[in-house]
Amino acid sequence: MMTNKPKSTSLLLAVDFAGTLVFAIEGAMAAANGHLDLLGAMVLAFVTALGGGIIRDVLIGAIPPNSIRDWRYGAIAFAGAAAVFLFEEQVRHIPQMLMLALDAAGLSLFAVAGAEKALDYGIHPFLAILMGGITGVGGGTVRDVLLAQVPTVLRADVYATAALAGAAVVVAGRGMKLPKTAVAMTGISVCFLLRMISVWRHWNLPVLGMR
Amino acid sequence: MMTNKPKSTSLLLAVDFAGTLVFAIEGAMAAANGHLDLLGAMVLAFVTALGGGIIRDVLIGAIPPNSIRDWRYGAIAFAGAAAVFLFEEQVRHIPQMLMLALDAAGLSLFAVAGAEKALDYGIHPFLAILMGGITGVGGGTVRDVLLAQVPTVLRADVYATAALAGAAVVVAGRGMKLPKTAVAMTGISVCFLLRMISVWRHWNLPVLGMR
Amino acid sequence: MMTNKPKSTSLLLAVDFAGTLVFAIEGAMAAANGHLDLLGAMVLAFVTALGGGIIRDVLIGAIPPNSIRDWRYGAIAFAGAAAVFLFEEQVRHIPQMLMLALDAAGLSLFAVAGAEKALDYGIHPFLAILMGGITGVGGGTVRDVLLAQVPTVLRADVYATAALAGAAVVVAGRGMKLPKTAVAMTGISVCFLLRMISVWRHWNLPVLGMR
Repeated sequence: MMTNKPKSTSLLLAVDFAGTLVFAIEGAMAAANGHLDLLGAMVLAFVTALGGGIIRDVLIGAIPPNSIRDWRYGAIAFAGAAAVFLFEEQVRHIPQMLMLALDAAGLSLFAVAGAEKALDYGIHPFLAILMGGITGVGGGTVRDVLLAQVPTVLRADVYATAALAGAAVVVAGRGMKLPKTAVAMTGISVCFLLRMISVWRHWNLPVLGMR
Repeated sequence: MMTNKPKSTSLLLAVDFAGTLVFAIEGAMAAANGHLDLLGAMVLAFVTALGGGIIRDVLIGAIPPNSIRDWRYGAIAFAGAAAVFLFEEQVRHIPQMLMLALDAAGLSLFAVAGAEKALDYGIHPFLAILMGGITGVGGGTVRDVLLAQVPTVLRADVYATAALAGAAVVVAGRGMKLPKTAVAMTGISVCFLLRMISVWRHWNLPVLGMR
Repeated sequence: MMTNKPKSTSLLLAVDFAGTLVFAIEGAMAAANGHLDLLGAMVLAFVTALGGGIIRDVLIGAIPPNSIRDWRYGAIAFAGAAAVFLFEEQVRHIPQMLMLALDAAGLSLFAVAGAEKALDYGIHPFLAILMGGITGVGGGTVRDVLLAQVPTVLRADVYATAALAGAAVVVAGRGMKLPKTAVAMTGISVCFLLRMISVWRHWNLPVLGMR
């Protein structure tokens, strides 16, 4: 379990950091909406940005998780919280569609990276898809639990589904030995487009218990 | 920690799969009652059925957890969610007493299997009993947390207590070097009967804070 | 990851057990206030006292966590729950200021011990501070989540901040190769005093979303 894995390339790392920052800002915004203090904003930024990856890493046996090995992830998450704290008014004026697009981008990156890492650790393809989904939505789920709310991913929209679709593309492409970069780009695109189209078209999954 | 452990025999595996299915159906029913969508039902089915075992495996060092190593557990959980989704009306007409009995059976199997696995990993007998309890009730606890409810196991009935009793029988029997199969059957019976009798007799543990 | 670490000395162990007992009593009191049964009180006592350390140990790769390796932690947590159950009236008459001081002491001990353990496992200093904070407040956070409440540490007071300050003192002192015992005593004092003064002066961190 504890073998050395290939290090992320610098492009991947930059992309990972960008996703972390976007999710951290969203976490801190949720803290602001809940009237939490600065510490609460830092906690929710950290949890939202890094919780999904931490859960995945614990489950696949990559312990300590990446964001506990590398201090830069936590630093970026806290920078996101500080940005919201210092520039709350400006952050609130970011157009909603831009935030949705950035969030969809972060979701896509996390889902694809999560599925890839799970495959690298020898996890079964079916479960690697789940690990991709958890990487994408796990952080937001823990954030909502800490806010004593039913996680929004359980309630609404094609969100986790988009993450699973992107992860499934990666797993399928890897299974067919297709070029890794092309597979990753396709997975990211599928997740991003599925998410954005579902927002635009108000797609939802069928709901149970609606007799 | 990461040594090879004896594989489950096929009977044990069948029993484990049956418990997974029952718990998954209950998780999906909870999702239906909360008006969650299909994805939410799949998540709650997975979490309810496999969350307890995952927590136990992480705590005893059996990482990746069993249900992340073996795709069949997740597949069975999702099959349970799909069954609820497709046949919700019929599932709702399953007599309550039958569901209670199936749930008690699942609880018994999980608690006994959880205590046995903890002992196999060299966990202290006292903590192996706790691990059995967590295996039995952990999934339902996480499900309730995701539904933003105080877990029912904390509130009411002889439920976790029955799981702990079944696990204690296993730990005691193993400590006395009694035959494994007889010990497991006894543990399962004790948990099952304690749970069913407590439902029938409306047994409850004493409550604090009732001055 | 799984190397042998130096065993705690008996003084450290006694201090650790004392902190466990205080936190367990607080957990069981929360259960009493929520009208949970005896089992619920045991669960909340265990989670409040040992949850933070368990999360830290999983994240730094010290698996199984300390309190799953050593049965005495769980036994002490349950003893705390039993004490609340048997002597609830008397426990309620413990002066609030004494409980606050005992809680601050427990917080200080846990935060300092958590940061030290993280450093011992080779975690980066910045993240070791976080691990100290998690050790101090993680258990109370999980307890509040189980009670379906927004964790109090996210909402109010200089509580997690004091834990982080104490952990930071330890990390800084260790980085400067200062004597371990003096560093630990200083970290504990800083956390304890910061917490008590903040209670006395009604200090709070700035709050977001208060336009």
